[in-house]
Amino acid sequence: MNERAGGEAFEKATDDGGIGDEIHALASRLYPICRSITGDGVRETLAILAEHIALEHHEVATGTPLFDWTAPQEWIIRDAYIADASGRRIVDFRKHNLHVLNYSLPIRERMTLSTLREHIHTLPEQPDLIPYRTSYYVGNWGFCMSHNAFLAMEDMEYEVVIDAEHRDGSLTYGEYRHAGATDETFLLSAHICHPSLANDNCSGLALLALLARDLGRRATRCSYRFLFAPGTVGSLAWLSRNEALMPEIKHGLVVSCIGDGGGPTYKRSRQGKAFIDRAMAHILKHFGGNATLVDFSPYGYDERQFCSPGFDLPVGLLQRSAFGTFREYHTSADNLDFIRSEHLAASYRIITDVIDIVEGDWTPVSTNPKGEPQLGRRGLYSALGGDKAGAQAVMAMLWVLNLADGRHSLLAMAERSGLHFSDIAHAADLLRAHDLLRKAD
Amino acid sequence: MNERAGGEAFEKATDDGGIGDEIHALASRLYPICRSITGDGVRETLAILAEHIALEHHEVATGTPLFDWTAPQEWIIRDAYIADASGRRIVDFRKHNLHVLNYSLPIRERMTLSTLREHIHTLPEQPDLIPYRTSYYVGNWGFCMSHNAFLAMEDMEYEVVIDAEHRDGSLTYGEYRHAGATDETFLLSAHICHPSLANDNCSGLALLALLARDLGRRATRCSYRFLFAPGTVGSLAWLSRNEALMPEIKHGLVVSCIGDGGGPTYKRSRQGKAFIDRAMAHILKHFGGNATLVDFSPYGYDERQFCSPGFDLPVGLLQRSAFGTFREYHTSADNLDFIRSEHLAASYRIITDVIDIVEGDWTPVSTNPKGEPQLGRRGLYSALGGDKAGAQAVMAMLWVLNLADGRHSLLAMAERSGLHFSDIAHAADLLRAHDLLRKAD
Amino acid sequence: MNERAGGEAFEKATDDGGIGDEIHALASRLYPICRSITGDGVRETLAILAEHIALEHHEVATGTPLFDWTAPQEWIIRDAYIADASGRRIVDFRKHNLHVLNYSLPIRERMTLSTLREHIHTLPEQPDLIPYRTSYYVGNWGFCMSHNAFLAMEDMEYEVVIDAEHRDGSLTYGEYRHAGATDETFLLSAHICHPSLANDNCSGLALLALLARDLGRRATRCSYRFLFAPGTVGSLAWLSRNEALMPEIKHGLVVSCIGDGGGPTYKRSRQGKAFIDRAMAHILKHFGGNATLVDFSPYGYDERQFCSPGFDLPVGLLQRSAFGTFREYHTSADNLDFIRSEHLAASYRIITDVIDIVEGDWTPVSTNPKGEPQLGRRGLYSALGGDKAGAQAVMAMLWVLNLADGRHSLLAMAERSGLHFSDIAHAADLLRAHDLLRKAD
Repeated sequence: MNERAGGEAFEKATDDGGIGDEIHALASRLYPICRSITGDGVRETLAILAEHIALEHHEVATGTPLFDWTAPQEWIIRDAYIADASGRRIVDFRKHNLHVLNYSLPIRERMTLSTLREHIHTLPEQPDLIPYRTSYYVGNWGFCMSHNAFLAMEDMEYEVVIDAEHRDGSLTYGEYRHAGATDETFLLSAHICHPSLANDNCSGLALLALLARDLGRRATRCSYRFLFAPGTVGSLAWLSRNEALMPEIKHGLVVSCIGDGGGPTYKRSRQGKAFIDRAMAHILKHFGGNATLVDFSPYGYDERQFCSPGFDLPVGLLQRSAFGTFREYHTSADNLDFIRSEHLAASYRIITDVIDIVEGDWTPVSTNPKGEPQLGRRGLYSALGGDKAGAQAVMAMLWVLNLADGRHSLLAMAERSGLHFSDIAHAADLLRAHDLLRKAD
Repeated sequence: MNERAGGEAFEKATDDGGIGDEIHALASRLYPICRSITGDGVRETLAILAEHIALEHHEVATGTPLFDWTAPQEWIIRDAYIADASGRRIVDFRKHNLHVLNYSLPIRERMTLSTLREHIHTLPEQPDLIPYRTSYYVGNWGFCMSHNAFLAMEDMEYEVVIDAEHRDGSLTYGEYRHAGATDETFLLSAHICHPSLANDNCSGLALLALLARDLGRRATRCSYRFLFAPGTVGSLAWLSRNEALMPEIKHGLVVSCIGDGGGPTYKRSRQGKAFIDRAMAHILKHFGGNATLVDFSPYGYDERQFCSPGFDLPVGLLQRSAFGTFREYHTSADNLDFIRSEHLAASYRIITDVIDIVEGDWTPVSTNPKGEPQLGRRGLYSALGGDKAGAQAVMAMLWVLNLADGRHSLLAMAERSGLHFSDIAHAADLLRAHDLLRKAD
Repeated sequence: MNERAGGEAFEKATDDGGIGDEIHALASRLYPICRSITGDGVRETLAILAEHIALEHHEVATGTPLFDWTAPQEWIIRDAYIADASGRRIVDFRKHNLHVLNYSLPIRERMTLSTLREHIHTLPEQPDLIPYRTSYYVGNWGFCMSHNAFLAMEDMEYEVVIDAEHRDGSLTYGEYRHAGATDETFLLSAHICHPSLANDNCSGLALLALLARDLGRRATRCSYRFLFAPGTVGSLAWLSRNEALMPEIKHGLVVSCIGDGGGPTYKRSRQGKAFIDRAMAHILKHFGGNATLVDFSPYGYDERQFCSPGFDLPVGLLQRSAFGTFREYHTSADNLDFIRSEHLAASYRIITDVIDIVEGDWTPVSTNPKGEPQLGRRGLYSALGGDKAGAQAVMAMLWVLNLADGRHSLLAMAERSGLHFSDIAHAADLLRAHDLLRKAD
């Protein structure tokens, strides 16, 4: 039904509930793993994603220059706990991997609470939740715990153990490439460095992996790159290894926090009016509800790197609730209950809709530009059935014919008319089938 | 008083009530005639208009190609009725020409209500009104009646007669040309195909005919074309016969539904920022009240044809209430009580105001661009009399002098200053008379 | 702390209260003087200003052509009064110089109230206040007084004396020039022709004189011209004598009514988007409160002349309350109680802020444009200290780095980021000190 002149329409998951459940199930498998910017947690995650797609696995040796950065050492974490005098573990990494400061230095010492407390992170205003904290580039050790549990700690000597290690190895990332008919490339990227945080970003990893799987079954006009990489250094590694590709990156989305019920929130690329920005604005306008567009700012996820001035790629950020704005953000409350199949399915649909626009946009030229063509004698009024849907379909045809001057693509027509791109595209296909349109050169 | 450097100001009807009454009286003569897209109703209408202006009468033979269309057959309607068993006419074309589906096929049959009802159109939500329905391009027969009268019809056999005929002949339209000093041409167009509907469009026909009469007495800078043609095919016929003229069409208005108390509503041309769009925006801004500007859309009256991509003429649509938005629209309630002299006079004034802008716009250059000229020693402060009017007149002079850099026409000055074009134009004339301005080359 | 790559930051008055008090004290010395468009009042005022700055004193002979105007005669006023039969002065110029119509013709006559009243100006709606009235270019004589005092005048014969004289002499203005490293010139102008009106414009004269004093102690990138001249003819005289300078005038502010608690109000230059317009918009946006931007109009102070089409200089008007909008305007209530040190200090700060932007704007280019530079290893996170201020400082660095593509000056970065120019400039200096930025060519 959505057969379009500009490219095959995305094969919708026949059952949106189905794809949502699939994404949630995959996110659930990723959730328990203790990831960091390097190390086996990332490798284990990529191995699970690779069950669905032919994922390329990349290792970048520690110390490799990544523009102004270098690939960091690997972090091995085996165990971490604070035990009281009786040997009971007050804080136990085996119960929740947020308990250890991510990328923490090792320690094995007995110390009083007054010494230890300098290394304990809590959330006094959310006293039941464990915070997520990292210390990637400043050597430090520490624990994260609920404020209530912290308050219950007695003033005694504790056994403090972080059985961790930093050593030379490599930075790991995964990439999935789907070759289309052209080199025009769409980049989709999710960070893989966060440990047990479901929305941020097991949701993004799982959604993109299954989208890559589904997209891989299609013949597309554009080529696609799916990147699963640790934040900052991972995208910098990918950028540094793919500089020659950059002129072909015409569209991009960073995807994170994609499974909660907020938003959707689209942060524009630095360019601000790139095709991806226009297409996402169109989709979110028709999405309604709390859909929100925000301008680019240089704070966030890996769009910071893609949109740095030396690249300035047309890459935006798609989220449901924006990072930092929801109470579960970077806490133990960002768990598998926080993300829901229905939201994941809706997010999946937003991205397939934008792919449909990227794939399906084309610029028609009317073969009868002087006056309106007579739709009636071609059966184009009645063909479209009755009432409201029919009237809207006629409006879509009239808009397409009126703007078919070779200077308006379908997306421009959708923007000007206020109609949905899919209605415009359907009308254009119908008119083209009746030889009322041709493609602009 | 409105003597302008850029062209003679429009001679206002000395008494607006007078012109409104004149338009209403002429619309009243046109109202009873049963018009259609072809046939004697159009000819009879043109004959009445021709009492006021030297109207060219055009006949376009049936079957003549009109771009993607062809000139349709003529429709002759002699009588139409539904009579009950007693011979009493339940529905009678002679009482209201809306009772017959316009351009209906003939029929002469006895049939039961259950067969007949498929061919009866009513308005259940406005049960006292007869709807206006047409079937120009799909062969069909039918009647229109009030829903209450329909409900009162008993289940019996009826005599159903439409004494009509389609035959080869011609499509008819009228044109009035007023030659100005230049070929810059202003098109004014009203559709002539609707039967007894007062606002839509006896109002437009009568207003444009009397405007053409008044304009014909003036020496103008622009040339004017007044078109009285059936919707769609009529404008297509005119376009197809006048293609060479198109580059000269610099301004245009389609005029319909111009006699009720709503709006005024101006729908921009497809170009969106044409001079006519700016001038109408200026006038409607100062009109106040419910004046409304809407963007072009490819649904409406003959602006659809004028603004098709192969022509893309700067033609907007001027209405009072917008079509489709008032309850009397396309019903028997669109009668001579619905249009009023005062509204017709105000609409007439809007159009003469826009003509005054088109005629009177020019681009001044200050002869004393460095600093302000000394208005006082030229008596230009006191010349303008006292208080508020005087202060506003001084402001108009200061704006004109400040913007007289050869890059601002009077309309641009009116737009930037927020002052009315007529005040700006008057100030410019005064300053020019004192040699403080010259015309830009 | 505000050391900037683009120019030395303005040395803030160490104590804002101090500069406000200084300005108020200087305005208080200027207040009693009876100024007019010519004459000794202007000279006396300039002499006081010259105590603070090396003021150039200019005399332009009566009759000298000033574009469309000529330098007027001098006005000498010695005394003026209305005395009753007993010789008691009902109105006495020695008590308030607003009592005489400014630039009045002389008179010495006895006359009845009915004759005299034609020459008396009052404010019936503000019956306690003396209005300020002038008659520069139409010969007239008159008195101004409170409406209540006027109502108390009995119907008797009065002795009416204005001991004044018009004679050839010269028009007087003062100019202070501060040479910077470049010819890029900033004009600051205040009218000097109003008599005892504190806000309009003793405030502007005093503020600009002390600003000139403070600026004179600095090494600046731009050159500065401070103009103290009578309205209209004074600025025209300056313009006519400095035509060759005009291409160098890149920024300008007319300053008046700068000591009350309203506004601030910035009226844009005729250009509308000049650098000064952007810089003032930035400052007023962050000023908050009642800060108001208004578009240029050709009515006001000497921006009328600077922005005439033959010059079109980028000169705006800075006021607190806009002229004509406050009840004290052009009355005896515009006295030394109406202007306050705190407001004068805030106004001074606004102007030094805009000078800081003009001086301190530059266009950085990132030396690491691909990806973000690693701020952490350079100590640029911790260097910035804690919490909110630190977070904002990091955001400022991220914005500067992201927009350091050679197409964004610091002001453009401040506009896009919503951050204050000073924060952006500070971040840019810090980044430049770490070799992360260089200046664009």
